[in-house]
Amino acid sequence: MTRRRHDLESLLEVAVRVYTERGFDGTSMGDLAAAAGLSKSSLYHHVESKEQLLRLALDRAVEPLFAVIEEPESVAGRAIDRLEHVVRREVEVLVDRLPYVTLLLRVRGNSETERWALDRRREFDHVVAALVAQAAVEGDVRADVDPGLVSRLLFGMVNSLVEWYDPKASSALDASALADAVVFQAFDGLRSPG
Amino acid sequence: MTRRRHDLESLLEVAVRVYTERGFDGTSMGDLAAAAGLSKSSLYHHVESKEQLLRLALDRAVEPLFAVIEEPESVAGRAIDRLEHVVRREVEVLVDRLPYVTLLLRVRGNSETERWALDRRREFDHVVAALVAQAAVEGDVRADVDPGLVSRLLFGMVNSLVEWYDPKASSALDASALADAVVFQAFDGLRSPG
Repeated sequence: MTRRRHDLESLLEVAVRVYTERGFDGTSMGDLAAAAGLSKSSLYHHVESKEQLLRLALDRAVEPLFAVIEEPESVAGRAIDRLEHVVRREVEVLVDRLPYVTLLLRVRGNSETERWALDRRREFDHVVAALVAQAAVEGDVRADVDPGLVSRLLFGMVNSLVEWYDPKASSALDASALADAVVFQAFDGLRSPG
Repeated sequence: MTRRRHDLESLLEVAVRVYTERGFDGTSMGDLAAAAGLSKSSLYHHVESKEQLLRLALDRAVEPLFAVIEEPESVAGRAIDRLEHVVRREVEVLVDRLPYVTLLLRVRGNSETERWALDRRREFDHVVAALVAQAAVEGDVRADVDPGLVSRLLFGMVNSLVEWYDPKASSALDASALADAVVFQAFDGLRSPG
């Protein structure tokens, strides 16, 4: 049981790397077996299909991202504070699950699992847009902004981390310092006050 | 001459679409010929190689992006105003050259042309980071921020437009309104003052 779990874990790491490099469409079970150093029949012993493996990998990103929006600080209080909490925690999840979130953000949507992932991303965007709209009602965000546009720009900034954040770089900030920098830039902007 | 130019123009549109969908590595001259409705020999009549076509396509993004940083408003005045001008104009270029900028942002770097494009992107990042650093010296940006991190987050936000901006959507803002929204969010942040 422990052995089996360990194997699935390593397999997921391999799959997420191969899918991110070649795309899901461009990857066969044969490619996955080769990358994992397994025979195809051993691979089928662990998983039914490359789509099942994709789903398991995407769950590693989707589950913690959605867990964040159910945290107490995300559901109670002023909307601007809830939004700030969501942004901060998403940065932390992104750092913690970097390869899985990277895969989630590159999904294009040709299979059932990819469409499921895109639906989850849209659902998440709606939650954030609703928080922005509520913050505008409460007077904490300018009322003349479009909440949908604001959330896309906000998460455009957050999600760009997958393009350049390298936790192994000597200059890399840890998750908490990175989250501080993102929250500050997003909520207070570049310009110094006064 | 006019005919030839027209043909190259349509060919570039086809190539940028195919490269963006399949990746440069995954595209052959045969794929390009098929997508353009040409025989391979007609295609070779227009271009020497798929790499030459990639270079021409990337130039459509790189040239106007670099032209922006040489505009008078980008080179004279307070750094914060120059930075604001660069961000505003980049959004406009991005909208004007959307498929070409999208391709530029997806380049990964396995061929000489792709490495050239990545070098140009890095050069651009350095120009922006230098503007942020200068704005901090002039007291217009908080001095305790890392200019490299600030520029990556800033252009993470700007570049995310290629993921969701659809100029054909009925609700789509025009380039100038979109640039206003991005500049406001980047420089003044989400939070209402006071």
